Amino acid sequence: MTDREKDQEKAQILIEALPYIQRFNGNTVVVKYGGSAMKDEDLKMHVIEDVALLKLVGMRPIIVHGGGKEISRWVKKSGIVPEFYNGLRITDRETLEVAEMVLGKVNTDLVSLVQQLGVNAMGISGMDGDLLKVRKVMPDGQDIGFVGEVTRVNPDILWKLLDDDFVPVIFPIGSDKEGNAYNINGDHAAAAIAQAIHADKLIYLTDTRGVYRNPSDPDTLISELDEDEALRLIDEGVVQGGMIPKIRNCIDSIRNGVRRVHILDGSAEHSILLEIFTDRGVGTAIMEREQQRYYRGA
Amino acid sequence: MTDREKDQEKAQILIEALPYIQRFNGNTVVVKYGGSAMKDEDLKMHVIEDVALLKLVGMRPIIVHGGGKEISRWVKKSGIVPEFYNGLRITDRETLEVAEMVLGKVNTDLVSLVQQLGVNAMGISGMDGDLLKVRKVMPDGQDIGFVGEVTRVNPDILWKLLDDDFVPVIFPIGSDKEGNAYNINGDHAAAAIAQAIHADKLIYLTDTRGVYRNPSDPDTLISELDEDEALRLIDEGVVQGGMIPKIRNCIDSIRNGVRRVHILDGSAEHSILLEIFTDRGVGTAIMEREQQRYYRGA
Amino acid sequence: MTDREKDQEKAQILIEALPYIQRFNGNTVVVKYGGSAMKDEDLKMHVIEDVALLKLVGMRPIIVHGGGKEISRWVKKSGIVPEFYNGLRITDRETLEVAEMVLGKVNTDLVSLVQQLGVNAMGISGMDGDLLKVRKVMPDGQDIGFVGEVTRVNPDILWKLLDDDFVPVIFPIGSDKEGNAYNINGDHAAAAIAQAIHADKLIYLTDTRGVYRNPSDPDTLISELDEDEALRLIDEGVVQGGMIPKIRNCIDSIRNGVRRVHILDGSAEHSILLEIFTDRGVGTAIMEREQQRYYRGA
Amino acid sequence: MTDREKDQEKAQILIEALPYIQRFNGNTVVVKYGGSAMKDEDLKMHVIEDVALLKLVGMRPIIVHGGGKEISRWVKKSGIVPEFYNGLRITDRETLEVAEMVLGKVNTDLVSLVQQLGVNAMGISGMDGDLLKVRKVMPDGQDIGFVGEVTRVNPDILWKLLDDDFVPVIFPIGSDKEGNAYNINGDHAAAAIAQAIHADKLIYLTDTRGVYRNPSDPDTLISELDEDEALRLIDEGVVQGGMIPKIRNCIDSIRNGVRRVHILDGSAEHSILLEIFTDRGVGTAIMEREQQRYYRGA
Amino acid sequence: MTDREKDQEKAQILIEALPYIQRFNGNTVVVKYGGSAMKDEDLKMHVIEDVALLKLVGMRPIIVHGGGKEISRWVKKSGIVPEFYNGLRITDRETLEVAEMVLGKVNTDLVSLVQQLGVNAMGISGMDGDLLKVRKVMPDGQDIGFVGEVTRVNPDILWKLLDDDFVPVIFPIGSDKEGNAYNINGDHAAAAIAQAIHADKLIYLTDTRGVYRNPSDPDTLISELDEDEALRLIDEGVVQGGMIPKIRNCIDSIRNGVRRVHILDGSAEHSILLEIFTDRGVGTAIMEREQQRYYRGA
Amino acid sequence: MTDREKDQEKAQILIEALPYIQRFNGNTVVVKYGGSAMKDEDLKMHVIEDVALLKLVGMRPIIVHGGGKEISRWVKKSGIVPEFYNGLRITDRETLEVAEMVLGKVNTDLVSLVQQLGVNAMGISGMDGDLLKVRKVMPDGQDIGFVGEVTRVNPDILWKLLDDDFVPVIFPIGSDKEGNAYNINGDHAAAAIAQAIHADKLIYLTDTRGVYRNPSDPDTLISELDEDEALRLIDEGVVQGGMIPKIRNCIDSIRNGVRRVHILDGSAEHSILLEIFTDRGVGTAIMEREQQRYYRGA
Repeated sequence: MTDREKDQEKAQILIEALPYIQRFNGNTVVVKYGGSAMKDEDLKMHVIEDVALLKLVGMRPIIVHGGGKEISRWVKKSGIVPEFYNGLRITDRETLEVAEMVLGKVNTDLVSLVQQLGVNAMGISGMDGDLLKVRKVMPDGQDIGFVGEVTRVNPDILWKLLDDDFVPVIFPIGSDKEGNAYNINGDHAAAAIAQAIHADKLIYLTDTRGVYRNPSDPDTLISELDEDEALRLIDEGVVQGGMIPKIRNCIDSIRNGVRRVHILDGSAEHSILLEIFTDRGVGTAIMEREQQRYYRGA
Repeated sequence: MTDREKDQEKAQILIEALPYIQRFNGNTVVVKYGGSAMKDEDLKMHVIEDVALLKLVGMRPIIVHGGGKEISRWVKKSGIVPEFYNGLRITDRETLEVAEMVLGKVNTDLVSLVQQLGVNAMGISGMDGDLLKVRKVMPDGQDIGFVGEVTRVNPDILWKLLDDDFVPVIFPIGSDKEGNAYNINGDHAAAAIAQAIHADKLIYLTDTRGVYRNPSDPDTLISELDEDEALRLIDEGVVQGGMIPKIRNCIDSIRNGVRRVHILDGSAEHSILLEIFTDRGVGTAIMEREQQRYYRGA
Repeated sequence: MTDREKDQEKAQILIEALPYIQRFNGNTVVVKYGGSAMKDEDLKMHVIEDVALLKLVGMRPIIVHGGGKEISRWVKKSGIVPEFYNGLRITDRETLEVAEMVLGKVNTDLVSLVQQLGVNAMGISGMDGDLLKVRKVMPDGQDIGFVGEVTRVNPDILWKLLDDDFVPVIFPIGSDKEGNAYNINGDHAAAAIAQAIHADKLIYLTDTRGVYRNPSDPDTLISELDEDEALRLIDEGVVQGGMIPKIRNCIDSIRNGVRRVHILDGSAEHSILLEIFTDRGVGTAIMEREQQRYYRGA
Repeated sequence: MTDREKDQEKAQILIEALPYIQRFNGNTVVVKYGGSAMKDEDLKMHVIEDVALLKLVGMRPIIVHGGGKEISRWVKKSGIVPEFYNGLRITDRETLEVAEMVLGKVNTDLVSLVQQLGVNAMGISGMDGDLLKVRKVMPDGQDIGFVGEVTRVNPDILWKLLDDDFVPVIFPIGSDKEGNAYNINGDHAAAAIAQAIHADKLIYLTDTRGVYRNPSDPDTLISELDEDEALRLIDEGVVQGGMIPKIRNCIDSIRNGVRRVHILDGSAEHSILLEIFTDRGVGTAIMEREQQRYYRGA
Repeated sequence: MTDREKDQEKAQILIEALPYIQRFNGNTVVVKYGGSAMKDEDLKMHVIEDVALLKLVGMRPIIVHGGGKEISRWVKKSGIVPEFYNGLRITDRETLEVAEMVLGKVNTDLVSLVQQLGVNAMGISGMDGDLLKVRKVMPDGQDIGFVGEVTRVNPDILWKLLDDDFVPVIFPIGSDKEGNAYNINGDHAAAAIAQAIHADKLIYLTDTRGVYRNPSDPDTLISELDEDEALRLIDEGVVQGGMIPKIRNCIDSIRNGVRRVHILDGSAEHSILLEIFTDRGVGTAIMEREQQRYYRGA
Repeated sequence: MTDREKDQEKAQILIEALPYIQRFNGNTVVVKYGGSAMKDEDLKMHVIEDVALLKLVGMRPIIVHGGGKEISRWVKKSGIVPEFYNGLRITDRETLEVAEMVLGKVNTDLVSLVQQLGVNAMGISGMDGDLLKVRKVMPDGQDIGFVGEVTRVNPDILWKLLDDDFVPVIFPIGSDKEGNAYNINGDHAAAAIAQAIHADKLIYLTDTRGVYRNPSDPDTLISELDEDEALRLIDEGVVQGGMIPKIRNCIDSIRNGVRRVHILDGSAEHSILLEIFTDRGVGTAIMEREQQRYYRGA
C-alpha cells in the first residue's frame, strides 16, 4: 500500500466507527480495572487510551480499580503475611492501612495517565462525597476484619463529575455509619456503582476472554448471553469455579438496571475498543433477553 | 490478516486518532462545500460522513454550501440563458428566484443526510436570525443584479445552534437593509462567517488538491503555507487564474481571526478526515506564520 | 377629531387590548398559512405583521405554511401536468423536487418578512432536527408517490427555538425512516405539530370566514362550537364538502391536547388580531365543551 | 362605522404600535409617579394600565411614587402642623413615622392595582436589599429633620425583580449607615435609581404638560430638547420657578447614563402611552444631543 | 477565667452548635412574630438577631409579623374606637387603612433591622406577587368588615426571594378576587404560608412559654407533643381558652405538610436560638407522631 | 449557673459570632494543615470541626495537607534512610512512591472525618484536573530527586468543587509536562493555590503561636503585621531560622492577591475559630498595609 492508500484506509476505519460512536453517544460505562490488566505499564496505557477515546467520542466512562499485586507486595514488605478467606483478603487494621495507601497510589497514577492524554480525570475513594457506604462482611459468620459490602451508593458526586466532563477514577474504600474505613471487593463495588447510576455498560477486564461453552476449546467463546442462558450455563456446570460469582454478579447487575455487562480479557490490547466498536466483539456480553436480537450487527 | 488481526488494526487506528481528537476538541470548523464535491450521491455521502464524524468526536462543524450545477440546470429549464460577469452569475429577479429555490432544495437534502447519520442538523439561509446582511455588488461599476457582498454577520444564531448541538447547514442568500434577497458567492459567505466566529478552521472543498509549486507536477503540492509565502507565490506567478482570489480570500481570513484555512480536493474520498486526522495531510493549509512550526507532527 | 383626540383614541385601544394580552401571555399559537391568504404581497405583509405582534406582546407563534399556487405554476413550468387524487397532489420524484424548491423559496421569503419587522425568525423544514417523521400515504391503496403522513413529531427543535425567542417558520416536507423526503399536506402537518406541543391555539387561515349555519347566509356564521356541536353539524349535513375533513381535523386536534382551533378568512386583513384581540371575533372557534362558557367576553 | 369597521380600525392601531413595541423592547423605564396624577382613582388606574401595558409588550417599567396629598392629610390628623423649607418637608420623628405609614399604604394600593391587571408587582422601600443609602440633608446649613439625599443605590434587588418579571413599585424611604430611616424627595430618588441602572427612559408625571417656550401660550410646548438647549432655556429665563430644579435634575440624569427623560402631564389620560407610542408625543423629552435627530418619526 | 479561657469556651460553644447547624441546613422556617415580643426595641433586636443567625448558618427563615399594639394606638389616634368580635378586630374601611399603614411601617422597620445585620431582607405584603388571596370572613354570620381568611397562597414570590438569599418579611394584608384589601389574622397567615411551602418549622413567638400539663405549675411545661397527644390535651381540658385555637392551628399545619411547630415565649431573649440549638429546648414542639422519637438529642 | 442560664449564655455567644459570620460570608480560606497539628486524633478532629464550621456558616474552606511524621515512618519501614537537603526531603523514586501512598492515605482519612460531620469533601491530588503543574527543583544546583515547585495552578477543578459545596482536601503531589509525579513542599503548594484563587485567607497551622517581637517572651506575640513591618522584622533579625522562609512566603502571597495570611499554633484547640471569630485573635496575621487599621474590632 502507498502512504496515500494507508491514509485512505485509516479514514475508512474512522468512518466505520461512526455508527457505533453515534449509538453509544452519552452512554455511561463503568470499567472495572484490575488484576492482570494492570501488570505492565504498556498494558495500563492501552487501557487508559481506550477509556480516553470513549470519553472523547462522547461516552461517559468511569473507572473502578483495584490494587493488583501491589497490595500483597506492600503487605509483605510491612512484615504481614497476606491471608485470604474464600477469596476475600483478611484485613486487619494494618493491612487496611496498607491497602488504602496502595490503592491511593495506584489511583494517583491512573489519574495522571488519563490527564496526560488531555482528558480531565478526578481520583476519588468511596469516602469522597459519601459515595460508598458499607457494612462489615461476615462470611459464614467469620470475622475477616475490615472488609465491607456496599449498602448504599450516593451517586451525586459522580453526576457532578460527569457533568463537569471528568472521568471519575474510583478506588474501593468505603465507610460505615461511624466513618470507619473498609476495603471493598472491586468487582462488587463496580457492580454497585453501575447499578446505582443505571449504567449503559459495565465492563469487567478479567484474566479470561469471556465465557466458553467448552472451556478447553478457545473456539467456543460465547459472544452473547441473556440472563436465562447465563443461569442455565451455571446449572449445567459449564460455568465453574471463580467464574460463578462473577456471572451471578453480572446477572444481578442486569436485573438492577445495568443494560449490558461485558467480560473481556484485560491483557489483550484495546479489548475495550474492540468489544464496543466492532461487530464481532472480543468477549462475552450479558444482557436482558429482549435486547439481544437488536444488538449485534445493527 | 485474520479477522482478529484486522480488528486489532482497527483499534490501533482509532487510538492513533486520539491525539488529533484531543487537540481539536471543541474547535469550530467551517466547511465550504460545493462544486464537483457535490457531483454524485456517493461523494456527497462521504463529505457528510466526515462532517458527522467531526461532530461526534467533539468538534463543531458548520457547512456553507452552494448549489453546484443545479442552479444552471434549473435556470436553463426556466428558459433563461445563464450569464456570468467575471465569474459572478448575473442575477436578474427570475434567476434569483431559481437560485433560492435550488439552494433551498440542496439545503434540505444535506440536512436530511446529516440527520440520517444520527446527528442533529438545522438548515438556515442568511435570512434566518439576520445571519447575513449584504449590499449590492457592482463589479467595475457594472449592474449584475441581485448579487450581494456580506457587510455584517450576526453570529448569534450560530452560537445558539452550536450550543444546542446542531450542525448548521447554511445556504448563501442574504438580505439588504430593506430586506431584499441577494445571492452571495459561497466562498465569500463561508469566509465571512468563519471570520465572524473566529473559526479554528475554514475548509474549502475545491476541484484541485491544493496549491502546487509547479502546477504541472503533482508531486509539488505544498502542504503548508504561511501568509507571506502565500503572497509571494502570487507575486511570483506560481499561483494563477481562479486560484488567485481564492488564496487572497484565505489570507484575508487568516488576518481576520481564522486560525487555519485548508484547500482540499472535494472529489477525493474523506479528504476532510485525512487532512485533519493524519500527519501528512492531503491538501494545502494556510496559517499565520508563527503557528506553522508547531503544527504538523505535534 | 383633532390629532390629540385621535392619539387619545389610539391609547384607549391599546388599553382595551390589555386584558387579551394578559390572558394569552406565553401562549403557543400555530398558524397554518397558505392558499388565498398568500395571494398578494400586501396580504402576506398583514399576516406577518399579525404574527410579529403576537410575538412582541408575549405569545409564542409558529408558522406552518404551504406553497400556495406557486407549486402548480412551477410544476407546469417544468413541463409536468399537475395531477391530484382526492385533493392530494400526485407527487412523482420530479414534482417532489419542484415542491421542495418552491416551499423552500416561500419559506425564505416569509422569514425575511418577519425579520424586517425586527423579530427573529428561523425557517425550518420537517427535516431539521428530525422534526417530522412520515410514512407513505396510500389513499384507497393508490400509490400517489411521495406524499407522506406524519407518524412522529420531535418537538425539541421547536422548544429550543421558542426559548431562544425565534418564530419558527415551517414548511411541510418530512422524511421516512430511510431519510427519503415526502410532501405533507399543510393542514395535517400544522395539526400534528400543534398536537405535539399541546398548542394553546391552532389557527387555520382559509378561503372562508368560518362555519355557517346556513352557508348561503353570511349572517349565520357560527362564532363558537364545541366538539359535539361540530360533529352534529357534520351529521346534519350543515358542514359539507372540503370543510368536512377540515372540521374533523379540528376535532382531532382538540381531542389531542390543542386548546382551541380557529378557522379564519385568510384574505381578510388582520383577521388573526381581530379574532384574538376583540370580543366579537371574526371566524369560528372550536374548543372543548367546558371551555366555551368562560371564554368570550371574559 | 359598523362594528366590523371599528374592529378593523382597532387592529390597524395595534399594528401601528408595532414599530414602537419593537424599538423599545427590553427597555427599562423609571416612572416617577406622584402629585396630581394620584388625585383620583380613575386617574390612578389609567397610569397603572399604562405601566402594565409597557410591561406586557416587553418593556421593563419601575414605579417610584410619593404619597401625594395623603401625607399632609395624616400629618394634620395626628395634630402636627406641616412645615416646609424650600419645598422640602420638615420632618421630625413623628412626621417621618406618618410619612412612612402613608407611603407604605399607597405602595400596597399601587401593587394591588398592578396585580389586578394580571402583572406581578413587588412593593419595596429603599430599605429592602439596601436599595437606597442616604445621608442627612442640611439645606443652607438648616436642620430640617429626617430628610435624606441618596448617596448610594444598590440596584441588585431591582435586577432580580426585573429578571423575575416583576414591576418594582418603590417608595422613597432610605436609611443611613446606622440604619436610621429618612424621607427622600421622590424626584430625586427616581433620578438616582434611573442613573444607577442606566435606564432607557425616566418619566416624570407632573402637573404641567412639559416645557413651554412661552409659558402663557399652550401652543409653544417644546417636544424635544437636548442638554444644551435645556441649559440655555434656564439661562434665558424661559424655564422658571419650580421647573428649574426639575430640568437640572433631568440634565443630570442624561449626563449620568439615562438615555431620555420625559416630562408629562400626569393628569392627562394615558399620557405615558401617548408619549411612547405616537410620533407626536404629548410632553417634553430631554436627551443627549446626538440622539435627537434619529428619534421622532423613525 | 482568663480571656484566653473565655475565648476557648466560645470556640467550644460554636463547635457544639455544629450538629444542629448541619441538621437544619437548608430548612425553611416561618417565624410568626407579634404581640409582646415586639414590645421594646431591645427585644425586637434579639428576635431579629436570631433570625439573621438562622439565615447565616444556612437556614431559610421567613418572618410573618403583626402590628402589635401600634394598630390600636393609631386607630384611637384617628378617633376610632377599636372593637373586636371573638378576638377578631372589627375592621371598617378606615380601620383597615390605619392597619395597612401601621403594618407597612412596622414592616419597613423590621426590614431595616435585618439589613443592619448585613442580611438581605425584602418586605412584602400579601398583595405582592398575589401572595395571599383571601375571602371575607363572616364569623357566626356576622359582618365584621374587611377581615379575610386565606383561600390560596401563591408561594412563587417566596421561592424567588429565598433563592436570591433574601429573608422575606411579610405583613398579613391580602386581597380578594376583585383586588379589595383585607386584614388577615397573623397566626392564620403564618400557618397558611408555612403549609403552602411545606416549611420545616413554623415558630410562634407568643406570650407564654408553651403548653403546660398544669398551667399553674411552671415545671410542667411539655417539651414535645405529637398530634394525638395535643388533641387529647384539648379534650381533657388541659389546654384552655385562647390556646385552643392556637393548638388546633398547629395540628392543622402538621397535617398539611409542616414538619414541626414550635410555641415559644417571644419575650424571652433568644428563645428561637435556644429552641433550635440546644437539646433541652425552651418551649413546646408539636410534630407528627413518628418524628418524635428521633428528634431530641439526636 | 442554672441550665437555663447556661443555655442563655450559649445563645449569647452564637449571637456574638454574628458579625464575624457576616463579614466572612463567602470568603475562600486555604488551610495549610500538617506537622504537629496532626499528631493525635483528638487534635485532628478539632481542626476538622473548625473547618466544617467555617463551611457551614457560609465560608469556603480548602484544606492542603502534608503527611506529618507518617512519611518518615513508612520510609524507614521500607528500609530507606530519610535524607534532607536544606529542609527538603531527598526523594528518590522509592521515597516518592511511599510519600504518595502515605499522603493518599492521610487524605482519605481527612475526607472521611469531614464527611462524618455531614459536610461533603473531596480528596484530590495535584494530578486531578491538572491542578498543580511543577518543574524539578534543583537547590544550589543539587539533584534532590522528585521534588517539584509549582509552575502553574489550574484552579478550574477547585471552583467546580466549591460551587458544588464540597470542601476540597488536597495533597501536594503534582506532575511535570511529561506526567511524572513530584513531591511538593506543602507550604509552597498551599501558597500557590491561595494565590491562584486570590483567597481571602491563607491559614498556616504551625508549631508556634506566631511571630514574637521577643521570641523568648510569650507576651510579645505580634497580633498583626503589614508587609513592610514583616520585612523589617527579618532585616532586624527578630524573625529567624525556619520562620524566615515562612514569612517570605506570606509576604509573597499578600503581594499576589491573597488578602490575609494567618500563622497559628496548630496544636492549640480550635485556634482557627479563635483567630477568625474573636477580636483578640490567637496568632499573627499578615496583610496589606491599608487593610490593617480597619480590621480588628470592626
